[in-house]
Amino acid sequence: MQRLLTSVKRVLQVKKAMQEASLSPASLLPGAHQRFSTVPAVPLAKTDTWPENVGILALEVYFPAQYVDQTDLEKYNNVEAGRYTVGLGQTHMGFCSVQEDINSLCLTVVQQLMERTQLPWDSVGRLEVGTETIIDKSKAVKTVLMELFQDSGNTDIEGIDTTNACYGGTASLFNAANWVESSSWDGRYAMVVCGDIAVYPSGNARPTGGAGAVAMLVGPKAPLALERAGINRPFTLDDLQFMIFHTPFCKMVQKSLARLMFNDFLSASSNTKTSLYKGLEDFRGLKLEDTYTNKDLDKALQKASLDMFNKKTKASLYLSTHNGNTYTSSLYGCLASLLSRHSAQDLAGSRIGAFSYGSGLAASFFSFRVSQDASPGSPLEKLVSSVSDLPKRLASRKRMSPEEFTEIMDQREQFYHKVNFSPPGDISSLFPGTWYLEQVDELHRRKYARRPV
Amino acid sequence: MQRLLTSVKRVLQVKKAMQEASLSPASLLPGAHQRFSTVPAVPLAKTDTWPENVGILALEVYFPAQYVDQTDLEKYNNVEAGRYTVGLGQTHMGFCSVQEDINSLCLTVVQQLMERTQLPWDSVGRLEVGTETIIDKSKAVKTVLMELFQDSGNTDIEGIDTTNACYGGTASLFNAANWVESSSWDGRYAMVVCGDIAVYPSGNARPTGGAGAVAMLVGPKAPLALERAGINRPFTLDDLQFMIFHTPFCKMVQKSLARLMFNDFLSASSNTKTSLYKGLEDFRGLKLEDTYTNKDLDKALQKASLDMFNKKTKASLYLSTHNGNTYTSSLYGCLASLLSRHSAQDLAGSRIGAFSYGSGLAASFFSFRVSQDASPGSPLEKLVSSVSDLPKRLASRKRMSPEEFTEIMDQREQFYHKVNFSPPGDISSLFPGTWYLEQVDELHRRKYARRPV
Repeated sequence: MQRLLTSVKRVLQVKKAMQEASLSPASLLPGAHQRFSTVPAVPLAKTDTWPENVGILALEVYFPAQYVDQTDLEKYNNVEAGRYTVGLGQTHMGFCSVQEDINSLCLTVVQQLMERTQLPWDSVGRLEVGTETIIDKSKAVKTVLMELFQDSGNTDIEGIDTTNACYGGTASLFNAANWVESSSWDGRYAMVVCGDIAVYPSGNARPTGGAGAVAMLVGPKAPLALERAGINRPFTLDDLQFMIFHTPFCKMVQKSLARLMFNDFLSASSNTKTSLYKGLEDFRGLKLEDTYTNKDLDKALQKASLDMFNKKTKASLYLSTHNGNTYTSSLYGCLASLLSRHSAQDLAGSRIGAFSYGSGLAASFFSFRVSQDASPGSPLEKLVSSVSDLPKRLASRKRMSPEEFTEIMDQREQFYHKVNFSPPGDISSLFPGTWYLEQVDELHRRKYARRPV
Repeated sequence: MQRLLTSVKRVLQVKKAMQEASLSPASLLPGAHQRFSTVPAVPLAKTDTWPENVGILALEVYFPAQYVDQTDLEKYNNVEAGRYTVGLGQTHMGFCSVQEDINSLCLTVVQQLMERTQLPWDSVGRLEVGTETIIDKSKAVKTVLMELFQDSGNTDIEGIDTTNACYGGTASLFNAANWVESSSWDGRYAMVVCGDIAVYPSGNARPTGGAGAVAMLVGPKAPLALERAGINRPFTLDDLQFMIFHTPFCKMVQKSLARLMFNDFLSASSNTKTSLYKGLEDFRGLKLEDTYTNKDLDKALQKASLDMFNKKTKASLYLSTHNGNTYTSSLYGCLASLLSRHSAQDLAGSRIGAFSYGSGLAASFFSFRVSQDASPGSPLEKLVSSVSDLPKRLASRKRMSPEEFTEIMDQREQFYHKVNFSPPGDISSLFPGTWYLEQVDELHRRKYARRPV
């Protein structure tokens, strides 16, 4: 990763640095600037005037150092074996100790990203946080993150927090990319942070919890470029080499991919690709509203789409399967999983479809174009290498019993509004380098500290 | 205001419509593309590639139909006469009935803007809300506003909510402008909505409350263009014909302008403009930290800056003086006040400095360039006309006694989390066309209705 200079003439130097950097642009396929849409959306300004390939340059994932096994939870909750592991598709669920909150999660993931990329703290010109884990109705998490930048003297960072359920991460990403393409851009990187702590009451919904955060570095010449203009035809899954989804639980994603395939089937003429859509012909005549609850259709769709699921989507569910739902960062955890389970060569030149949504409702279907260059030292290869330790890191977590998990959930509830308070617990249970909540004073001010790396 | 067509080919038609529209671009002074900064920030892309003069095309203000007189509050609170009216600079304070909440305020101001501009509901492609009056920690106010767009079939609207204390309105405005300049722009308008209900406990802080909302239409060829690139020299108040500030209370703004003048004085060489900085020379040697609490300096600064305050800032405080603090929308209420107290001719070609900040801390100093064309029917003249009724609308509010005000504040607190509940009150006390909270069901779902126009 190229270090950026900082000074009064920063911008021009950045331009020069970028020209010289190893972050040379990937040569793009003809379709690289196409965003999928059934409605053409021709930008009024010329496409070639914005910086090239604005998108994700680097990405970091944080998850808690402890988890509960879903088979243990099945027994603990007296439900049939497989209800969570097969029915929901969840094998493990990460959860936070009482020493962690949304601020500490985001502090950790931002620091990890800056340390891994070795970027100077003043190379970031925008920082936006998408979360729905709100401690303070007025103060932004971004404000807390600014503490990390303090020593660098970098106080000039645009962006605040953004909220609409699980959609906040995607809104932040789009805002960051727009900034880079706008006249407000000062040549520095944008950083997008998203994260949540998902906790449900004891009972049916509890196994769909989770906790985590993702930080992304956004700028031009990115190995994962956000695709731009629309194309004037309906797209199908054939246009996407990979497809990732916001993941409340993994089974829902498998069903979502199956639904996309059903849409393709309904759009296709009846004499095309019958082998691909084997077993679906009987359902062509159903009224749309009847397709949502038809169990026979569900089964036929899952069967027909299984190969496609294994090929295009399954790898993206690795983190969600092992850690659970993380709301705003869920989709970007899927992206990291996908990158960690494929080689740069496999990914090069491909298009990754992404579906992000938040209750409420806000939703976007968009796509990334992966750069062509997968050579050693290329931005893509560096990005892929940087997340390759994900399975190893997940495997290094501590397994906790459902009893311990439940006790910690109860403690978190009990301590939620507490003041004049230092959370109990041993910081050695956190991963090295993890930020944690040290103290809440009588005015609800929170003080954080970091476990040494 | 030009009506926009809607269809698959919307974007190209919009382009054509804009070319033909009476919204022709103002010819700009040489300095029009300069944003004030002590640090040059040269955009990497060419300036002439973005749409021209992206900024505020139209603006609407909403405030409650009732107020309490601050002289009445002084007596009620047993404080000396003038403590609120002179000490704070506040004469009246608007407040909401129990039938209003942040959603209803924003519904009202958006509908007012759409009705006044006569734009079709599908001409809006982005809608972002900046507020710190949070009812739901997860659902965006924007989601509620989408109900207004339902009949038009326009479900394709980007943007959600953004939060950092009083800075959310400015963050939304910048995000909207960035969107228009980015490859994501689809040729439609962006709408920025900001608003808050400011309530303090009974006692010293209570008279600094208020309530209100502002909606702004953002797009190219705006009569109030957000200025772009930096200039390579320090700016002074001489560069600004008008200067507006976020306004917690009006006296603070007068002191803020005085502080800017002091900065100019310190930057100026000691033999320049002594008449302008009369009475300040004795304070040149003070250490900066000692200037913040020096009462003699305060007095000298207020005296020296009084003419400048009257000329550049006072008119912008009309709404704040009469309605109080509205947090995220405060600065934009100041902008509306400024426009309502000057003619289009007075404003044409001027530069309006703006200082926005939110506790936490996020802050921006930026500027608008007003278009040159003030002729009848020009965008500027239309914008100025549209807010000219502000004093008349403020004067038509109902004066309530401090006892009634206090009772309603207590009711609002009591009803805050209530479910299965319809707020008591007479809707005829609201302005015609005001949206109000009709019911909260057992699942906290809120239903709104509108008082007929």
